[in-house]
Amino acid sequence: MGRPAFVSFSVPNVTGRRVASADIVATLVDDIRSGRLPPGSRLPPVRVVERQLGLSKNTVQAAYDELAARSLVEPREREGSFVASTPQEVQVRTVASPPLPELREPPPLEVRDPRSTALRLSSVFVDPALLPRKKIADCVRSVLRQPGLAALYEPQGYGPLRELIAARLRARGMREITADNVVITTGSQQALDVIGRVLAPRRVAIESPVYWGAKYLFASHGLELTGVPIHPFDGLPLDLWERKLRASKPGLLYAITSYQNPTGYSYSSHELLRVLELSRELGFAIAEDDWGSDMLSGSEYRPSLRLLGGANILRLDSFTKKLWPSLRVGFLTAHESIVRTLVAAKRLVTLGNAWLCEAALAEFLDRGYYDSHLATMQRELDRRYARCLELLRETMPQEVRFTTPGGGPTLWIEVPRRVDLDVLRATCLARGVAVEDAANAFEGPSHLHGFRVSYAYLPPDSLARAVGTVAEALHAQLSR
Amino acid sequence: MGRPAFVSFSVPNVTGRRVASADIVATLVDDIRSGRLPPGSRLPPVRVVERQLGLSKNTVQAAYDELAARSLVEPREREGSFVASTPQEVQVRTVASPPLPELREPPPLEVRDPRSTALRLSSVFVDPALLPRKKIADCVRSVLRQPGLAALYEPQGYGPLRELIAARLRARGMREITADNVVITTGSQQALDVIGRVLAPRRVAIESPVYWGAKYLFASHGLELTGVPIHPFDGLPLDLWERKLRASKPGLLYAITSYQNPTGYSYSSHELLRVLELSRELGFAIAEDDWGSDMLSGSEYRPSLRLLGGANILRLDSFTKKLWPSLRVGFLTAHESIVRTLVAAKRLVTLGNAWLCEAALAEFLDRGYYDSHLATMQRELDRRYARCLELLRETMPQEVRFTTPGGGPTLWIEVPRRVDLDVLRATCLARGVAVEDAANAFEGPSHLHGFRVSYAYLPPDSLARAVGTVAEALHAQLSR
Repeated sequence: MGRPAFVSFSVPNVTGRRVASADIVATLVDDIRSGRLPPGSRLPPVRVVERQLGLSKNTVQAAYDELAARSLVEPREREGSFVASTPQEVQVRTVASPPLPELREPPPLEVRDPRSTALRLSSVFVDPALLPRKKIADCVRSVLRQPGLAALYEPQGYGPLRELIAARLRARGMREITADNVVITTGSQQALDVIGRVLAPRRVAIESPVYWGAKYLFASHGLELTGVPIHPFDGLPLDLWERKLRASKPGLLYAITSYQNPTGYSYSSHELLRVLELSRELGFAIAEDDWGSDMLSGSEYRPSLRLLGGANILRLDSFTKKLWPSLRVGFLTAHESIVRTLVAAKRLVTLGNAWLCEAALAEFLDRGYYDSHLATMQRELDRRYARCLELLRETMPQEVRFTTPGGGPTLWIEVPRRVDLDVLRATCLARGVAVEDAANAFEGPSHLHGFRVSYAYLPPDSLARAVGTVAEALHAQLSR
Repeated sequence: MGRPAFVSFSVPNVTGRRVASADIVATLVDDIRSGRLPPGSRLPPVRVVERQLGLSKNTVQAAYDELAARSLVEPREREGSFVASTPQEVQVRTVASPPLPELREPPPLEVRDPRSTALRLSSVFVDPALLPRKKIADCVRSVLRQPGLAALYEPQGYGPLRELIAARLRARGMREITADNVVITTGSQQALDVIGRVLAPRRVAIESPVYWGAKYLFASHGLELTGVPIHPFDGLPLDLWERKLRASKPGLLYAITSYQNPTGYSYSSHELLRVLELSRELGFAIAEDDWGSDMLSGSEYRPSLRLLGGANILRLDSFTKKLWPSLRVGFLTAHESIVRTLVAAKRLVTLGNAWLCEAALAEFLDRGYYDSHLATMQRELDRRYARCLELLRETMPQEVRFTTPGGGPTLWIEVPRRVDLDVLRATCLARGVAVEDAANAFEGPSHLHGFRVSYAYLPPDSLARAVGTVAEALHAQLSR
């Protein structure tokens, strides 16, 4: 068998610019994948292509190198470049099929159809249009140049990011926090998982209604749950809380104190203080989820359990809702005496998190972009909140009530008991508006009859359409 | 009070090039942070700086814009640009300190001192110098341009990445796999967590010794463990396995069939077949961790439980060891009937993983870089393996045995029982060589007396030094 003959290829004319290395790569990838250049074909030498296309030698060589990097071309010493033979497909026959694993029933999580175009009136995400996509991309690019991709990761999270987070929290009045107190997590969801995993007393008190992801996660760890009710219109029924907490003796209270999920309620100062007193009196610890306070303008003056109660309080926070969901970076701060145990639990689940996202965020914080982004977002949310109140006042039936949280991302709308919420949701969905079913958010029977309205996620025009659709459906049900 | 006076700043001379926008930013950041430019100072107008430094207007304006983006400078309409006032520090006093959470004792995970410079003879990572840092960075940059940063993430993992993984597995003989069968996880650690969380029968069989992260993770979920011994020199004692599996009736066997962690043992074809038969006969399911087969040249011809046993087998794999640890991307493939439950469990822990890492990996696979990287890495590991065998043969005492796995990342070294392994490790560490303590890897009493030697992690010179140090310490103990 002789040496394989050269095959030729032609690069399409690219109007208005010279043929680039990428054009040659694209052409040859196409020709090879389609079979026009079969395996074993010999490519023309670099100097021939260079003459034919009037290019510098480097351009063609770079294209051949790239094709070799992609395993499509094999350079053979002193012979030239050849279209690589694709590895032979492995023939395998199943010989003995074992049983499938038997699995537990999964929790009833809502699965959103990704193809749905319905307007999401209850989303807790912030409108992606308000998020600093370009600045984050800049920070990723900067990290790729300097310090460059790190191969390994730190189980507790990237050191410089922990330093920067600690500095922000110190400026917010949590003076004693250092990088050693900060544990980076995959969103705040992983922080909840770590808590559920390591808590020694196996009873936890949660608000009702509460974020479904916390309720089902704690339950999946076999924790017993006690629900303490949130009354978004009347404040917290703290005498009832005291009775329930005294009777059930939880080891921990999990509380979302600003823009509580799903009610949008924010604890008042006297409520925060009373919760701290109960905690001391009844001996339960506190995990405070403070995802929400930074959503409000003037958030640096906002009180919290952590600010009033000090370093013993586990504090959860996240960049998911405020900055960029798909980076999946949250963090937990904790008293130095328990950090080692929390990090060990995190290692058991994921070993560590994506370094690139941690490093890009560190760059973002270091440049001061986060503070300016928060200020811009808060101003826009203030505007959207005001617009949402106008819309609700203009369109909703008299009997419908809604909270006025003063800004932030969401509020709660409470409808008369005679409204059939299932019918309401179906009617709205048929008209392109998705309203959340809050039933799964309650621990025990639900004392509310309504749903969350987010003005952070939908742009003003869409919000107007969504609120209008819901109002119309409510009018129809109430006038029957 | 009059209008604040201009303050001036000077940009250092940059030899050999024009002052760039970044130089102005760096100077002003320094001046502002150090207090040389106090809050409220008015910066010189763009046209003044442009004249002074001989720059185009765009350069100075870009610097001022960047400083505004960092909240360091406030542009005020018709007044100019001012150094921003830093927000007043919030004064907070702790009023009532609640109790600390009581936590469970963490598992005895080894914590490596990050400042240690000891040569790691037992690492399962691949030498970062062999990993394609530049190509991964190229793929990240490409993703930032096209498709651009996605705001949200898919709970099951980025669709195009799942497609590309499925295509690779189909080419490896797992014909029926589609993107729907693939679940992206944070390394394979999260795959183990998902399995521990959802498995209905609460007894699992694991190899002994086994990867500590699997053993402690399963135990943390309250699973009962049955250990089946690995004999790296004699093959699997399958009659003993049968007796132990028959007696303990596990719901699942977790098996690392190529380069078993930590012994480096790879199951033979007849062992794979016998395990499948036992699985059918005794009714246990199988989770196969196949992190290792791709470490060996010719890996496409390597048999596995998944290849011989079909779609009912849960298969774990990861890019962590083979491509880039800090991306934290692994994946699980499963029968279509159980994928929904596995995804629900993953959502409970992290909701989803870092989209940027998933998308960059998809680009890396799509360009064909992964196959060419594996080929290059396999060839280098083959060379390092051969060199390691030479070193061991040259330096080790007669009574020391080691396995010859034919390539890949690691082998097992077995030393006489009279060697005190604690003393050996301490001696080696004092001479700058870290040897792993395998004691925690056993389920029950340990039937081996040795440790893992990795030739994948250390460059050849370091490997020679590390092996030499261990050999010397062994000679010293054995000649006593």
